Amino acid sequence: MKHKSILLTLLLLAMVLPFSAQEALWNQPEVQSPVIHKDNKASFQIYAPQASEVLLSGTWMPREDWAPEPVAMKKEESGVWTHTTEVLASDLYTYFFLVDGVQVCDPANPYVVRDVASIFNYLVVPGGQGDLYAVQDVPHGTLAYRWYPSPGTGQDRRLTIYTPPGYENSTSTYPVLYLLHGMGGDETAWTTLGRTVEILDNLIAQGKARPMIVVMPNGNVSQQAAPGAAPGALRPPSMDLPQTMEGSMETTFPEIIQFVEQNYRANREKSQRAIAGLSMGGFHSLHTSRLHPDTFDYIGLFSPAIMPLEGSVPEIYKNMDVGLTTQNNKGYRLYWIAIGKDDFLYDQVSRYRGTLKRLGLPFTYTETEGGHTWDLWRSYLTLFVPQLFKN
Amino acid sequence: MKHKSILLTLLLLAMVLPFSAQEALWNQPEVQSPVIHKDNKASFQIYAPQASEVLLSGTWMPREDWAPEPVAMKKEESGVWTHTTEVLASDLYTYFFLVDGVQVCDPANPYVVRDVASIFNYLVVPGGQGDLYAVQDVPHGTLAYRWYPSPGTGQDRRLTIYTPPGYENSTSTYPVLYLLHGMGGDETAWTTLGRTVEILDNLIAQGKARPMIVVMPNGNVSQQAAPGAAPGALRPPSMDLPQTMEGSMETTFPEIIQFVEQNYRANREKSQRAIAGLSMGGFHSLHTSRLHPDTFDYIGLFSPAIMPLEGSVPEIYKNMDVGLTTQNNKGYRLYWIAIGKDDFLYDQVSRYRGTLKRLGLPFTYTETEGGHTWDLWRSYLTLFVPQLFKN
Repeated sequence: MKHKSILLTLLLLAMVLPFSAQEALWNQPEVQSPVIHKDNKASFQIYAPQASEVLLSGTWMPREDWAPEPVAMKKEESGVWTHTTEVLASDLYTYFFLVDGVQVCDPANPYVVRDVASIFNYLVVPGGQGDLYAVQDVPHGTLAYRWYPSPGTGQDRRLTIYTPPGYENSTSTYPVLYLLHGMGGDETAWTTLGRTVEILDNLIAQGKARPMIVVMPNGNVSQQAAPGAAPGALRPPSMDLPQTMEGSMETTFPEIIQFVEQNYRANREKSQRAIAGLSMGGFHSLHTSRLHPDTFDYIGLFSPAIMPLEGSVPEIYKNMDVGLTTQNNKGYRLYWIAIGKDDFLYDQVSRYRGTLKRLGLPFTYTETEGGHTWDLWRSYLTLFVPQLFKN
Repeated sequence: MKHKSILLTLLLLAMVLPFSAQEALWNQPEVQSPVIHKDNKASFQIYAPQASEVLLSGTWMPREDWAPEPVAMKKEESGVWTHTTEVLASDLYTYFFLVDGVQVCDPANPYVVRDVASIFNYLVVPGGQGDLYAVQDVPHGTLAYRWYPSPGTGQDRRLTIYTPPGYENSTSTYPVLYLLHGMGGDETAWTTLGRTVEILDNLIAQGKARPMIVVMPNGNVSQQAAPGAAPGALRPPSMDLPQTMEGSMETTFPEIIQFVEQNYRANREKSQRAIAGLSMGGFHSLHTSRLHPDTFDYIGLFSPAIMPLEGSVPEIYKNMDVGLTTQNNKGYRLYWIAIGKDDFLYDQVSRYRGTLKRLGLPFTYTETEGGHTWDLWRSYLTLFVPQLFKN
């Protein structure tokens, strides 16, 4: 029986795998990449016998100016290029190769994630923070992609929703975190780059977070859904979408809340609603919570964009002081701001902290190492979520 | 305002994009790939100035032996390699580049899909069959990834479930299609490579399919979930998993049905249940429907594996004749078999048709061009689904 099963496997393998994969299997040296060693060093390999230079760029590398300086990989006689890192801190990292200047995903690693218009490989180094980003042997919530009517934008739109373990077999209501992406992102960003499902499953299992619903809408109001999930031809995703920071996300936000509260067992108390976002999503969270001051008791701004408030800004972003004062008078439980020291938005956020102080709005401020990158936003989510919905 | 917004975009762009993407933006020729022309020719481009050979392999190419012979791309002075196809039939195609022998995804195309352990780009050529695989401006169903208890395998397991447009706001029950993947696949295969959500949304909108629930379980009983979605370190997906064709999928299948019928408004009539699968999933559908002859009125075998029934096969695959006769006596409405003329399983399926004829089981047989590939399985789904749940 066993040899028949192997034979069948080989036959199926030969039919299903493309030419190059078969060639790889049969003619090329076996390559395993990445390999995470017991001491949390990681080795990378790529077979490129004809290349004259192969570089590796990974998010564990120190950043100079905008981005890490890639390291040169070493060519072995077999045609395999290799690189082994120093000991890596436990985390999730993305990386890519540059083979003679061409950006290449690791052919040996099928774990990829899209950031705006590029595909990157990722790896998780275990033993610490990274364990929160990995699937653990714990109860798992449900992830759904669902469409909702948005009369305010004149279209149906898609959102991503996480319901916690036990939700379906319960009759309770649950608190809701509305979690918003940044520029170039969409309703898939927080569950792919952001590892929201893993983080929530793990923090809930550890008793560090209350079971909650997490709603991840699309903050680009001109989009019905993420690139590839919206009607129409497949076009490259773009950073420069109309209708992102001109007010329509904030004014139509009640549609999202209404949809969620009509379709899920969501607790409708202000004390059971949170809104948070990164970068542009921080901007949306700031203004949505301010414009709807009876709605959210928990506000999280992760490396938020703070639009310059001079000149011809849209009406709803004016009179910030009045809006913030109203929000303060109505009350809230947590106003959490976090940013990295090297973030290009650091000064804007500093000035905004000044505004909050001047107006007397209480807030909690967390300053970390780092810039304007997903490693921070994942970690901010792990810091923010345990603070929510404490009664 | 407009120039401020552009400035902010550029700033964010500079922070978010990695080194190489910035380099691409600022130093490299602009590359658009793929471009589908009005006459349905497609052009591909990749910037690889140092490469001495760039090949393109795509699933529209004629296959010799196992796989398409890649075509050589032409190098322009700019360092961009280009290739334009002949007119392509409307369909979904996957492709990759070979840059000096290294398998490379198209850096300009972020639309990728995983097949077993490899990542491929895809494109959809419109104007016909391909339109069924694209998101159209029609009502959309909900896609969810959900875990269920599987006492028969001693673990929690994940499945993918599609509920049709209108499901959430209805009180009706819905018929259910159980849709199974092949070897090397998992519970994500039918919604990624198989375009199940798009196909169902579109066929339902056209009035060609009844609104139905589609349940896509993981047919590898040794897996809790797809690679990357199961507990544990990220390991390369494998074709050669234990416990796939030894009976446990079939014997534990009632757990899946029970979970679905307890958690969704699923119609529990035999006439409202279908099971179908490709390759190994066809094998699972054949045996699951035979072993539970009171359960399914609709059976679909897409390029099914038919295990050789000599030697030391597991007990449950023996006495096929008796089981099939029982299934026939209990009755069913559709037993649909489809296979490509060049499929390596063609002879096995021919022999199986002989068995069905000899035993007097009615079936419908569709023979198409092609081999053992996803383009057929997508098209088989579009042929099978309209035949279901006709009363």
